[in-house]
Amino acid sequence: MPVHEALDTFLARLQPRRLSGNRLPVQRALERIAAENIIATRDSPLFDRSAVDGYALRAADTNDASESEPKILKLVTRDHLAEGEAKQIWTGSPLPKSADAVLMLEHAKRTEREISVFAPLAPGANFSRKGEDVTKGQIALKVGTKLKPHHLGLIAGLGIREIEVVRRPKVAILPTGNELVALENELHSRNIIEVNSIILSGMCAELGAEAFSVGIAKDDEKEIEDKILEGTRNADLLITTGGTSVGFHDLVPEVLEKIENQSVVAHGIAMRPGMPTALAVHRGKPIIACSGNPVAAMIGFEVFGRPLLQTLLGCKEARHTIRARLLRRVTGVLGRRVFLRVRTYENKGEYWAEPTRVKGSGILTTMTSSNGYVVIPEDREGLKEDELVEVHMFDSLG
Amino acid sequence: MPVHEALDTFLARLQPRRLSGNRLPVQRALERIAAENIIATRDSPLFDRSAVDGYALRAADTNDASESEPKILKLVTRDHLAEGEAKQIWTGSPLPKSADAVLMLEHAKRTEREISVFAPLAPGANFSRKGEDVTKGQIALKVGTKLKPHHLGLIAGLGIREIEVVRRPKVAILPTGNELVALENELHSRNIIEVNSIILSGMCAELGAEAFSVGIAKDDEKEIEDKILEGTRNADLLITTGGTSVGFHDLVPEVLEKIENQSVVAHGIAMRPGMPTALAVHRGKPIIACSGNPVAAMIGFEVFGRPLLQTLLGCKEARHTIRARLLRRVTGVLGRRVFLRVRTYENKGEYWAEPTRVKGSGILTTMTSSNGYVVIPEDREGLKEDELVEVHMFDSLG
Repeated sequence: MPVHEALDTFLARLQPRRLSGNRLPVQRALERIAAENIIATRDSPLFDRSAVDGYALRAADTNDASESEPKILKLVTRDHLAEGEAKQIWTGSPLPKSADAVLMLEHAKRTEREISVFAPLAPGANFSRKGEDVTKGQIALKVGTKLKPHHLGLIAGLGIREIEVVRRPKVAILPTGNELVALENELHSRNIIEVNSIILSGMCAELGAEAFSVGIAKDDEKEIEDKILEGTRNADLLITTGGTSVGFHDLVPEVLEKIENQSVVAHGIAMRPGMPTALAVHRGKPIIACSGNPVAAMIGFEVFGRPLLQTLLGCKEARHTIRARLLRRVTGVLGRRVFLRVRTYENKGEYWAEPTRVKGSGILTTMTSSNGYVVIPEDREGLKEDELVEVHMFDSLG
Repeated sequence: MPVHEALDTFLARLQPRRLSGNRLPVQRALERIAAENIIATRDSPLFDRSAVDGYALRAADTNDASESEPKILKLVTRDHLAEGEAKQIWTGSPLPKSADAVLMLEHAKRTEREISVFAPLAPGANFSRKGEDVTKGQIALKVGTKLKPHHLGLIAGLGIREIEVVRRPKVAILPTGNELVALENELHSRNIIEVNSIILSGMCAELGAEAFSVGIAKDDEKEIEDKILEGTRNADLLITTGGTSVGFHDLVPEVLEKIENQSVVAHGIAMRPGMPTALAVHRGKPIIACSGNPVAAMIGFEVFGRPLLQTLLGCKEARHTIRARLLRRVTGVLGRRVFLRVRTYENKGEYWAEPTRVKGSGILTTMTSSNGYVVIPEDREGLKEDELVEVHMFDSLG
């Protein structure tokens, strides 16, 4: 099944929606997703506010000021200016009534009771108008916004102390395989250390989801079944690894079908790596059965887990992309979507993408020596040397 | 003082070095910075390992295999293959001795004791060689690496349970100003809510530093002095906001000079926004005195705080950049470095950067409606419409 068809079928069966929200102090909401529109309940600034230390004045009074014929304004302390008057104010202070400009301190010459102004000032100079940043009633922040420091600053400045954010999706991870041993357990020479749960937990955390492992299942129907039921009960998404190749150990999709007839919506997807990936829905809960090979599991997560979790979070944020030239030609596979790992770097103002030597989808150094991937579409036999490609970055340039 | 000179002087005075490390379980090290090279103490894989479910065999035995004249191999269960023999194995299993390829399950035809092979197999097919991912003694991960999920997977796969990561830099934040009130306190109509500590804490967290506020100081020498001393004592970096304009409240640089003669290395920097920024070093501890205007404070942090913290972390990671065409011309200021906020988006395969309507450096909506900034260099009067610019992204495209 083609990738897009598998994903569409999966999402059509699931009809995933944004998860519910919970309230958090603004200070703790960084990188969370706003679950509500924030409407300003007041103006910001709350009053005409000086942006500098200086003298509030009426701009019209400075109209004919010049170096040779400065205008003299009388300093007052009242909160209202009459013609020919000015008032000393600080950054952040409210403007006195009928003032419409602020002259910077260093641009005036002061005597005890007066200042000299040497150039005309435009109305509006050097202050922020009431409501200039946000007007009362306006949407200050839209639902679905991923909260960056300046978003938090903006709503805090409106006096908002708490914000409703989308709760973190819970992801259960179930690694399967007789050969696997957990990192914390005693290691023997023929064991393979289970690393997929560590990698996938990290990928979940990067998106704002919380992952937990339900523990390694042996290649045993009963054990897998029990852990699948446990995982789907306690999580919004279950990801399994291993037991999906078209071989002896095609166990996970078999167990899924046994638990619930026609729960598997796709098995065997036209992609590389990750061909054995299966997608299922059990009692409305999504299950992604990834390959046991770490790189294939990562790509499986990228292609199916990421868009699903983003839908649950109500915030679709694409990876940063860089347009780069391919350093050498690569071959694809007609009819399959190929995810080519590349190292992208800048040289003399041009971006280049060097395909990482592919050794196998179990080989994590193909990821650690890459910083992005390029998609070779199903209808291309390969990509040409020098071809301009779009690199999806999962690590920094270099 | 030009920006580059200010930064150079500051760093030359400080001589900042990477902070010490602390050991963490690999599972908790995501996004932290490796404080050590990780040397592989074993090969990965630890043995020649099948990448598929199938039959291990000697590739030479399949040399003349074809559809019409398949090669027949005898199935054995021994851990050593003689000529003409094959052994059924699973994904992740060790190859038997003298096997040098694995035939995928679905490519063979099996009877009880034999398999038929219909095409020649190349040596090395479908398995990962011992040490192919990482060889014993090799550096698996370099000091200074920001740990992504696949890095954690790689070292976990080598049996490494703990990793030394650079400790988080501690940043003390000291907002100053009579007009300020903390968000958690009662708000009156003429107060300005203190938001810089929230914004700067978030920017620190994004880099992997830990910020704490030492509380708002009034525009009072003694109060500012006490809090500066408290901040520098307990943190690796102190950031103050406010009290730095060239006005009545030029308090912070004055207090800094009072505490320690010649501690201020720069005050008044040729940039916009952020001109009043001051840089100081007190007893070897760095102090960045930012403008009280939130946008100017953010730019001050970006220009001076970010490179310093990255040096303390031992990991320089530039912001993602996008080359975009400027939607309309903008004016700069000769002799000053201007940080122009822009909204960058894609339209018909081209990236465009639209300058955000600048209203003032106190106006946070110029940040929330932008997703990046463009630097207008000191020697340019402005940038032209359609000019290709480099946008430093601080939020996602759109």
